[in-house]
Parts: sequence; structure tokens; C-alpha cells
Amino acid sequence: MKKIINDPSMIVDEMLHGIVKSYPEILHQVEESRVVVKNKRNKQVGLVSGGGSGHEPAHAGFVGDGMLSAAVLGDVFTSPTPDQIEIAIKEANQGAGVLLIVKNYTGDILNFEMAKDMAELENIPVEMVIVDDDVAVENSTYTAGKRGVAGTVLVHKILGDAARTGLSLMNLKALGEKIVAEIKTIGVALSAATVPEVGKPGFVLSEDEIEFGVGIHGEPGYRLEKMQTSKEMAQELVSKILTQYSQKPSEVGVLVNGMGATPLMEQFIFMNDVLTVLAQQSITVTFHKVGNYMTSIDMAGVSLTLFNVTDSSWLTALNSEVNTISW
Amino acid sequence: MKKIINDPSMIVDEMLHGIVKSYPEILHQVEESRVVVKNKRNKQVGLVSGGGSGHEPAHAGFVGDGMLSAAVLGDVFTSPTPDQIEIAIKEANQGAGVLLIVKNYTGDILNFEMAKDMAELENIPVEMVIVDDDVAVENSTYTAGKRGVAGTVLVHKILGDAARTGLSLMNLKALGEKIVAEIKTIGVALSAATVPEVGKPGFVLSEDEIEFGVGIHGEPGYRLEKMQTSKEMAQELVSKILTQYSQKPSEVGVLVNGMGATPLMEQFIFMNDVLTVLAQQSITVTFHKVGNYMTSIDMAGVSLTLFNVTDSSWLTALNSEVNTISW
Repeated sequence: MKKIINDPSMIVDEMLHGIVKSYPEILHQVEESRVVVKNKRNKQVGLVSGGGSGHEPAHAGFVGDGMLSAAVLGDVFTSPTPDQIEIAIKEANQGAGVLLIVKNYTGDILNFEMAKDMAELENIPVEMVIVDDDVAVENSTYTAGKRGVAGTVLVHKILGDAARTGLSLMNLKALGEKIVAEIKTIGVALSAATVPEVGKPGFVLSEDEIEFGVGIHGEPGYRLEKMQTSKEMAQELVSKILTQYSQKPSEVGVLVNGMGATPLMEQFIFMNDVLTVLAQQSITVTFHKVGNYMTSIDMAGVSLTLFNVTDSSWLTALNSEVNTISW
Repeated sequence: MKKIINDPSMIVDEMLHGIVKSYPEILHQVEESRVVVKNKRNKQVGLVSGGGSGHEPAHAGFVGDGMLSAAVLGDVFTSPTPDQIEIAIKEANQGAGVLLIVKNYTGDILNFEMAKDMAELENIPVEMVIVDDDVAVENSTYTAGKRGVAGTVLVHKILGDAARTGLSLMNLKALGEKIVAEIKTIGVALSAATVPEVGKPGFVLSEDEIEFGVGIHGEPGYRLEKMQTSKEMAQELVSKILTQYSQKPSEVGVLVNGMGATPLMEQFIFMNDVLTVLAQQSITVTFHKVGNYMTSIDMAGVSLTLFNVTDSSWLTALNSEVNTISW
């Protein structure tokens, strides 16, 4: 393992220092915590997200005006603890309550639920939206049901805009659930991530193998395959995702997300092929995004997210101005 | 080699399609060319940059209002041809002339010079700024003098802002040369890039080796070392860069640039260590940026750019709003 780090046990704290020292005009760290909070405080419902580290820029990169109010960082691939999440809730609360946006992993759900209970005891209204956009598999290593992956970033963006315009806590929760139902993602891995404290890759793919449906912590996917072209991968992922909608969408947003070690060159080639397949299916694309948004440390691969745009106001929200490090 | 591509000879064109189809609100492709142009045409000096592909998001990702007017894409690690560059010059020209921002590689200089001559024959005033920020080595595989690397992106940004505010061609050229003299970069590689048409890494580093000073096309650096901590690498690169200024800067901007396969986690840890070293040297940092801006396909490693801020208007230019894919 070659990584630009110091002590593997210190990586999250050192990364956090790097983030807040580099972007002090956007966010700051709550002292002696692993919570980052946006500088600009408006009278709105607070939005809190977070989870294990290793998915950068998620989630700290999406803290800022128009997106998240605060993010909580756990150890690598490990949920943050309830006390840390509670700190984030208190920081994010400006009197209108707090919405938690949580990826569907058993550890995260438990800890965010517990923090919600703790904050409610202190009279902060808290609601939760669970993102489970990964339609590759049901029930996984750390999950009951479907996993939450790159589509979460779109949820941050749409809810972030809605919160800024003054939507109430209950309406935000309802909007979040409506959006989540329309967002579907699957990834394909060419190589596994190496957790620094472990020191070796989480799984091994041979020089001519890829795996469809791998999770962002290296959870098993649904099929090992011999290496394919970008066109074939695009065909496979689009087809598989489309089977998950009860009715074929007529208009979608597309997010091609790099897993950490995938050059932008490949991400754009893959996007080009995805758009060709969607055009063949007569599906209109009205929102596009390509880049590293929800990574798996140094995994090589991409994920494809389709977002069934059934309400055009969601596009307005996706395209609105934000002040974050990474959107 | 596992890459998400189709035919290796088609990667630049397919990537280009992916880029322009994904961000049609920002830029478009000049028909039957490898030139991308920003949509918004203002009466200003046009800024054109480009070079070999494989450094994404450079340079297409920096085309847009407030940065580049147009970018020309060559084959991977290969200069674009003069006729393609001339197309970009003609597109960028809005009557006030065109400034070329060229990284210092012999092939690029030759071809951009020739395109300049061709455009001048058609009465378009053209000037050139050569960026040679890589202070790792003098004279390299493809270069006489010093190479041009990640600091080029800062030149795009500052000149892009200045051009938008109406600076003349000759004043832009003078400003560009003034800035370039203050920008210095060195990289460190943990692994080499694989050019898709070649199919294997450009050089090999063993599991415990790194190389200081490697270029963005895999040109040899100045020292092979056993693997080091991020702190040690930060110390090495900062010290080496500081020796290149005749007087130690009191205020700098810092760009930590990922080479393509380096997780953001590592880039932020490295930035944290760079900031510690600079603080020990009593150097104030007034601009920070961390991410993949000038990559070398799938190379693992980072480059460090220091920018001696001798004029505070440069900071205003760096922080001004832009509408690009990747700044």
C-alpha cells in the first residue's frame, strides 16, 4: 500500500484539518469534534448528512449555502457515533428543526436514530430521510434492503435548495422521500479500495475482470464479468436500472460518478455511451453531471445514477447556485 | 490495462462528445474539430489554451465565462496540430485579438507558434504566454527549459478574469508573464500513468518507491526515494520550491493537485501538512485549492504549486465567479 498519509489512525482528523484550513470562507469545524458546519447561518431547516469517511468529497464537500448545513465524519467506512451526530444536529438547528439525510447502512441508521432521539429530548424537532438508491442488490454486507450511494448527493442538492427557500421540516421530509423513490444507481468496479488501516484491497479482481453492482465499501455486486468496453458497461447499467422503474421514465437526470481512481477521461467516455443508450431508448436527458462525488477511496470504477424527473422544479433546484467545495 | 474505454484510437473524440453533451449550457464543440468554445461571446480578448489530452479536466474543463474562450485537444500526451489551434484562435477572436496560454513543451510551442503565424496572416492579432512552472528539473524529455504543469490553471483563472474586465492583448500578455514568474510547481509520483494506446505504465516504481519531480507525461524527476510520510513529502516539496524564489515569499497561494488516481482524502492530508510547513516558515497563505485540475491520466501522486502573491488584485481575480465545468 502506497498512500500519501502519516499515521493511518489519524487520517480522518488530518483530512478534516486539511478541508477546513483550505476552505475557511465556506465552512468550519466544531471544536473537538468531527463535525463541519457551514459559516452562513440562515433561518431555515438545518440539513445534516454524514457517514463513514473514504467517500470524499461526500459529505464535507457538500456543506455550504444551498446544500448541507453540517456533515459528520466517521472513521473510514464506519458510521459516526451518536454523540457526534448530535453535535451536528445542534449546530444545524436554527429554530426550524433538522432533517437528517442518511445512506441506508445498518450502522448509520442506528446511530442517526439514536442521535435523533437525543436531540428530541432537548426539544429539537428532527426528521430523517433514508437514501437507498443502489438497486444492484437487496440486503448486503452492512445493509438491510438497498444501499445508499451516489444518488445521495442529488438529494443533498435538491433538499438544500428547498430548505434555503424556506420549506418546513415535514415538507422537506416528504419531498426527500418523493425524490429518493425516483433515484436509482448501480456501480461497476475495476479494482477494490484499500482502507489505510487495513493495508490491502478489500477484494481482488484479476487483470481481465470487472464486477457489476459493487458497493461503495466494496460490498459484493451481482455479477463478475470479463473486461468489457465502455459501451457494453453503459448498456448493462442503463438496462438494469431501467428495469427498476415500474414505468420507463421519459425524462431523466444522469450522474456519472468516479469511484476515486478513475480518470475523468474514462468518466466522460462512459457518459457519452450512457447518453447514446438513453437516446436509443427515446429518454430525454435534462440534467448531467460527471466527476468524483461519492467515492470509495481509491477504487477504480464508476457508478451510474438515473433520476426520473417527474417534477421540473427539481431541475431548478439542481441547477441553483451553491457555495460548497465540491458540487 | 483495465480502462473504461472503447477503441483506444477513439478516446479523445469520445471523451470530447461526453464533455460537450454533458455541459451544453457552458460550451460547445466546433464542428469536425477538436476545439471547444464557450457559449457566451463577449467583446474581450480571446483566451485559448490546450495541449495533449490526458490531463483532464485541463483544458476543456476551464472553458467558460471568466476563464478560457476556447481549448484545443490533442491526442493523448501529444500537441494539437496547428490547423486545430488556428480554428480555436478564429473562434476565440471577437475583434480584440487572442492570447495563447501554452505549457512549455517543444511540440506545443512549435504548433502554437505556427498557428499564431497562420492567424496573423488573416489579420488576427495573436500573442502567447508560455507557462513553465515546474521547477523540478531543467530540460526534460519533451522540453527545453522548465515544463508547464498545474500552475497553468492559475494562469487561466487570473488572465480569464482580467480579459473579462477588458484588459488589452498586450497588457494581458504582460500580466501573464508577471504571474508565471511567481508560480512554481513540483510533483511527486507513487505510480505511473498508462496511455491507453500503449497499454502499459510509462515507468515502474516498486511497492516502496516514490519519485520526486516527475512530469505530467511521466518525464523523469529528480530523485527516487523510499516511500515517505505525507509530512516528509510536504517538507521536501515546499523546501525545494522555496529555494527557487530569489527572496522567500511572505504570502502565497497554494494549489494541491491530484494526478488522477489519488483520492481526495490523501490530497487534503497532504495540504494539511503543506500548510503546517508554510506556517513554520512564517509564510501566510491567502488562497487554497485542492483537487484534480491537471492530471496525468491514472497516475497516483500529487503536485504542489506555490504562487507568490505580490499583488492583491491577483487574489480578487482568483476568487471571482466563473462558469466552467471544473474550476
